[in-house]
Amino acid sequence: MSTSKQREKRNDSVILLIHCPDRRGLIAAVTEFITKNQGNIIYLDQYVDPVHQVFFMRIEWELDNFLIPREKIGEYFDTLLARRFQMQWSLYFSREVLRMAIFVSKLPHCLYDILSRWKTGEFVVDIPLILSNHPDLKAVAEQFGVDFYHFPITPETKIDQEQSELELLRKYRIDFIVLARYMQILTERFVQHYPNRIINIHHSFLPAFPGARPYHSAYERGVKVIGATSHYVTAALDEGPIIEQDVVRVSHTDTLSDFIRKGRDLEKVVLARAVWLHLQHKTLVYQNRTIVFT
Amino acid sequence: MSTSKQREKRNDSVILLIHCPDRRGLIAAVTEFITKNQGNIIYLDQYVDPVHQVFFMRIEWELDNFLIPREKIGEYFDTLLARRFQMQWSLYFSREVLRMAIFVSKLPHCLYDILSRWKTGEFVVDIPLILSNHPDLKAVAEQFGVDFYHFPITPETKIDQEQSELELLRKYRIDFIVLARYMQILTERFVQHYPNRIINIHHSFLPAFPGARPYHSAYERGVKVIGATSHYVTAALDEGPIIEQDVVRVSHTDTLSDFIRKGRDLEKVVLARAVWLHLQHKTLVYQNRTIVFT
Amino acid sequence: MSTSKQREKRNDSVILLIHCPDRRGLIAAVTEFITKNQGNIIYLDQYVDPVHQVFFMRIEWELDNFLIPREKIGEYFDTLLARRFQMQWSLYFSREVLRMAIFVSKLPHCLYDILSRWKTGEFVVDIPLILSNHPDLKAVAEQFGVDFYHFPITPETKIDQEQSELELLRKYRIDFIVLARYMQILTERFVQHYPNRIINIHHSFLPAFPGARPYHSAYERGVKVIGATSHYVTAALDEGPIIEQDVVRVSHTDTLSDFIRKGRDLEKVVLARAVWLHLQHKTLVYQNRTIVFT
Amino acid sequence: MSTSKQREKRNDSVILLIHCPDRRGLIAAVTEFITKNQGNIIYLDQYVDPVHQVFFMRIEWELDNFLIPREKIGEYFDTLLARRFQMQWSLYFSREVLRMAIFVSKLPHCLYDILSRWKTGEFVVDIPLILSNHPDLKAVAEQFGVDFYHFPITPETKIDQEQSELELLRKYRIDFIVLARYMQILTERFVQHYPNRIINIHHSFLPAFPGARPYHSAYERGVKVIGATSHYVTAALDEGPIIEQDVVRVSHTDTLSDFIRKGRDLEKVVLARAVWLHLQHKTLVYQNRTIVFT
Repeated sequence: MSTSKQREKRNDSVILLIHCPDRRGLIAAVTEFITKNQGNIIYLDQYVDPVHQVFFMRIEWELDNFLIPREKIGEYFDTLLARRFQMQWSLYFSREVLRMAIFVSKLPHCLYDILSRWKTGEFVVDIPLILSNHPDLKAVAEQFGVDFYHFPITPETKIDQEQSELELLRKYRIDFIVLARYMQILTERFVQHYPNRIINIHHSFLPAFPGARPYHSAYERGVKVIGATSHYVTAALDEGPIIEQDVVRVSHTDTLSDFIRKGRDLEKVVLARAVWLHLQHKTLVYQNRTIVFT
Repeated sequence: MSTSKQREKRNDSVILLIHCPDRRGLIAAVTEFITKNQGNIIYLDQYVDPVHQVFFMRIEWELDNFLIPREKIGEYFDTLLARRFQMQWSLYFSREVLRMAIFVSKLPHCLYDILSRWKTGEFVVDIPLILSNHPDLKAVAEQFGVDFYHFPITPETKIDQEQSELELLRKYRIDFIVLARYMQILTERFVQHYPNRIINIHHSFLPAFPGARPYHSAYERGVKVIGATSHYVTAALDEGPIIEQDVVRVSHTDTLSDFIRKGRDLEKVVLARAVWLHLQHKTLVYQNRTIVFT
Repeated sequence: MSTSKQREKRNDSVILLIHCPDRRGLIAAVTEFITKNQGNIIYLDQYVDPVHQVFFMRIEWELDNFLIPREKIGEYFDTLLARRFQMQWSLYFSREVLRMAIFVSKLPHCLYDILSRWKTGEFVVDIPLILSNHPDLKAVAEQFGVDFYHFPITPETKIDQEQSELELLRKYRIDFIVLARYMQILTERFVQHYPNRIINIHHSFLPAFPGARPYHSAYERGVKVIGATSHYVTAALDEGPIIEQDVVRVSHTDTLSDFIRKGRDLEKVVLARAVWLHLQHKTLVYQNRTIVFT
Repeated sequence: MSTSKQREKRNDSVILLIHCPDRRGLIAAVTEFITKNQGNIIYLDQYVDPVHQVFFMRIEWELDNFLIPREKIGEYFDTLLARRFQMQWSLYFSREVLRMAIFVSKLPHCLYDILSRWKTGEFVVDIPLILSNHPDLKAVAEQFGVDFYHFPITPETKIDQEQSELELLRKYRIDFIVLARYMQILTERFVQHYPNRIINIHHSFLPAFPGARPYHSAYERGVKVIGATSHYVTAALDEGPIIEQDVVRVSHTDTLSDFIRKGRDLEKVVLARAVWLHLQHKTLVYQNRTIVFT
C-alpha cells in the first residue's frame, strides 16, 4: 500500500498536545471549545504531574463538521484558551505524514526492522534519507530504495560534517531523526536543531550501563536481566527523557554473544515502539521525563 | 497503622463511575458539573468502546470546597446529568472502607498473602470474616484475628449451606467476596446476590485450561508459559469478566510441582492486583469485559 | 558476510541428540566415549523425564583431535553405545548449513523478519525458496533475491498442489519448512514428509484460541494478555509440540487493530526464537512435548 | 505440615557442588565415581565459563544403594577426585534442614512473605530468629512464633552490637542470613563471617540506583521499568554477586507511592526466589557472579 493511500484511509482529525499550570476547569474548557464548535472528540488522555502541578493533555477530534477551518484552529485556540491558561501547545493533523531520517553506523538489525515496518505499512511515514558515518549499510538502503549518504567523522571533521548533515536534513525537509545504532555522539549544537525530535536506542536499561559497550559491562557484572532504552537525545549523553524500556532475562549460561543476540531483538522492539509513539504524537516531554499517552 | 487512621489519612474525595451511550459533550458536561460547584478534579480517565459506542468514565474530585453536600451529590447528579444522558452510575466516597469476606478451601498461600497485605496497610479494607468448606485454615484465621466459619458442602447440602452463608454475609455487612483458591463452584443463585462483587483467582491464563487441574493440563500440553487469571464470578464457570492476568515462563525441566510452585506466586500477585483495583473502584464491567481504569 | 564465510568461522564440532530409557551410567558412558577418543566436550545438557523415565541429552564436542573420523562417528556410536542402551539418536555437524523453505500467504511481517535475520547473519542457513498460495509477497522475495513460487490452493487442487510443492522441496533439497503466517492447513500426508521439521507460528498462546481469527476471539473474551506460539506441525491443527511461547499485555483501551499490531511483534520474535533453536539443533520432540536445550 | 515431616518426605540424596579448572574428562570422572558405587544420579547440571575456563557442576544422587557410607563420601571424593582435578567442592545432604535468621528494620512486607512461605511448607527451613535495629516488627515475629531481638544501632554502638549479633547467631547455630529490607549496612568484618551466606534484597535493578532511596531516584529519572535485585552481600555495598532480578513496567501516571507499591511485590518475589535457590543449593559464586543451576 502506498503512503498516499494510507494517508487517505486515515481519519481526518486533529491532535492537540497541551501542557500548562494545573487549575480548575481546564478539561471542561478544552472540551467545550471542541464540542461547541461541532468537533467529535475521538481521543482524550490527560494527566496532572502531582509534583510540579502541571496539567498535560492529548486530545483528538474529527474535522468533518468542525466549524473552525483547519488553518484557523491554531489561531482560535491560542486566542480563546491558550493565553488565558498559559498553555504551551502543538497541533498536528492526522493526514500530515512526517518525514524521518535514519542515522546508522555498521549494525543493520534496527535499520532492517524500521525499513520493514515502513514497507509493510506499520509506520506511516516518509523515509527519504539514510545517513551514516560508515559505508557498510549502503546496500540495505538501496535494497529498500532510500537515498544513502556517507559522512565519515573524525574529531577534526566532526563540526563541518554535522553542518553538512544539517543542510542535507533541511533540503530533505526532515521532521525527526532516528538513531538506529548510530555510534557517534552528536554535538549539543546539532541536537539543538531537533529538540525532542531525535530518538536514540541505547542497549541497556538506563541509567545502568550508559556509554560504550553496555553488553560487556552487563556480562561482567553478572546481571540476570538485560535491557534496552529508547530516549530523546539531549546534550547529556544517554540522559535524555526515556520513551520506552524493556528487558529480557539472561543467565550465567549466556555468553557475551548471547547477550548481544538477545539484546538485538529488544533494541528493535523498544526502538520501534518509541518511533510508533512519536508518529502518533503520543509523547510529550517535560522536565526530562516523557509523558506517554496510551 | 489501624484502619481508622488510614481512613483519616486519605483524601476526602468522591469517585464517580459512569457508563452511557456515547455522544458529543459528555466529558464537558460532567467536568462542568464538578468545576462549577467548586470541586477540584484529581482523577479523570475515560474510554469509548469503539464497537458498542459506549462511553465510560471514572472521575474523582475533592470534597473540601464542593458546594453540593455529600449526601445530595447522587441526587443532584442524577437529576442534572444522568437522566439527560441515560447514564448508569455509581458513587463511592474515598473514606468509606469496604468490608470483604474471604472464601478458602485448603491451600493457604493466597489467604496468607491477602491477610499480610491487609495487616501491612496495603489493602485499606475491613476483613471480618473467612469462610471455608474445610476446617484446615482455621489456625491462619486465628493467627490474624479474623472470624472463621466452616461450611462443609456436599451435593445434598449445597443449597442450604449457601443459604446460611448468605445470611452470615448479610449479618457481617459484607460488600464483596474474594475466592482465595476456594475449590467449590458457587450456584447461580448465590452469585446473583453479589453481581461483579465476587473475585476469583483461576490458576491458568484463561480461556486456556478452564475447570479443574489446570496445572496438570498445562504440564501435559507442554506449554512454555503458565498463567493466572483473576475475574469476576458469573454463573458460567471461569467465563466471567477478566480483571487481571499474568504469566511466568516454564520449561521442559519444570516438573508438575514446579508448575504449582511457580504458579502460586502468580496467583497471589494477580489476585492481589485485582483486589486492589476493586478497592480503588477502578473496575467497571460491561458486556463481560472489564474496563480497568489506570 | 556470506554464508560460506560464516560456515568457516564456526567451530568444527559435532552435535549428538539422544533419547533412551533412563538407567544408571548413561552420562558416564557417553562422555567416556567422547573423551577416550580425544574429543573435547563443549556443550552438555541432559534431562530425565520424571514421568516416562526417559533420558534426553544434547552433547557437542570439537572434532579437531577426535580419533574417530567424521564419517564413521555415527557407525561407531551406534555399535558401541546406541544398541546397548536402546538409544535413538541424531548427529549433526556444526559446519553443515541447513536449507530452509518459507511458506507465506499475504502478511509480510514474519517474512521480512526472517529474511532480515538471514541477511544480517543471525540465521546461518540457506534460504533458496519461498512458496505461497497468493502472489502478494513476490516482490519481497525478489527484494531479497530468493526464488518465489505461487501455488494457488482450492479444495479441489489441494492434493495436487501439495504434490507439486513436495517435488519442488525435494528439488531444492529443503531440510525444513517455516510457515511464516501461511494461512493454509497442510494435509497429514504432506506433514508426514517433514516430521518435526515444519515450524508454524500461531497468533495466540495455545491452547487458548486455536484455529482462525484468534485476535478477534481474544478481543471478544476481554483478555489482559495476548500471546503467540511456535510449534512443530502435526496432523492435528494447532496441537503440535510447542517450541516457544510469549505474551504481551493488553488493556481495554486496545482495539482489535492494536491487538494485531502488538501481536505482530510477538509473532516475529517467537517464531525467530524457534527457528534459531531448530538451527542450533537444540530441540528434541518426545510425546508431543519439546525438550528445549538451553 | 511440620518441618520434620517434610524432611522425611524428601529424597535421601546428596548434592555436590564443584568448580575447578576446565579439562577433558571431568564429567566422565565424576559420573563414573557415582555410578560405579551404585549411586543413581537424579540431577546433573554443569557449565563451563568460557572466559575463565572454569568448570562448574551441581550433581545430586540418591543414597539408597550407594556403597560409600554417608559420612565417608566427602573423604573419598576428595581423595579420589578433588585433589587430582584441583576441585573446590561442597557437599549437602537433602535431609539436612538449614537454619536461617532474618534481619529486618521497619518494613514488614518481605518478612510476612518469608514467614508465610515457611509456614505453608514452601520453604523447608528452620527460622528460629529475627533480628532488627528497630522494635516495630516484634508483633509479627510473635504472630509467627519466632524469637525476636532488638539491636538498636548507632555509629558508636555498631561494632559492639554486631559483635553481640554474631554471638547470638552462633548460639542459634544459624547457617545463613536473609536481609528482608534491613536498612543498615553490615561491616566488612561481619560479612566475612558469612561469606556468600547473607542474602539481600535491593529495590532497584542493580547496577542502576544503588544505595539509598532507589525508588525516588527512579521516579526522578523517569524510567519506564523498575526492578529489584537479590544478591549475596559483600563488603562493597550493593555490588555483591546477583542471584536474581526482575522488573515491572511503570508509566508517567505512576506516582512515587505507586512505584513503592509495585516494587513491594517485586521485592517479595525476587527475594523469595533467591532464598529458594539457596535452600536447594542451586547457587555457586565465582568471581562475583552467581552460577544459578536450573
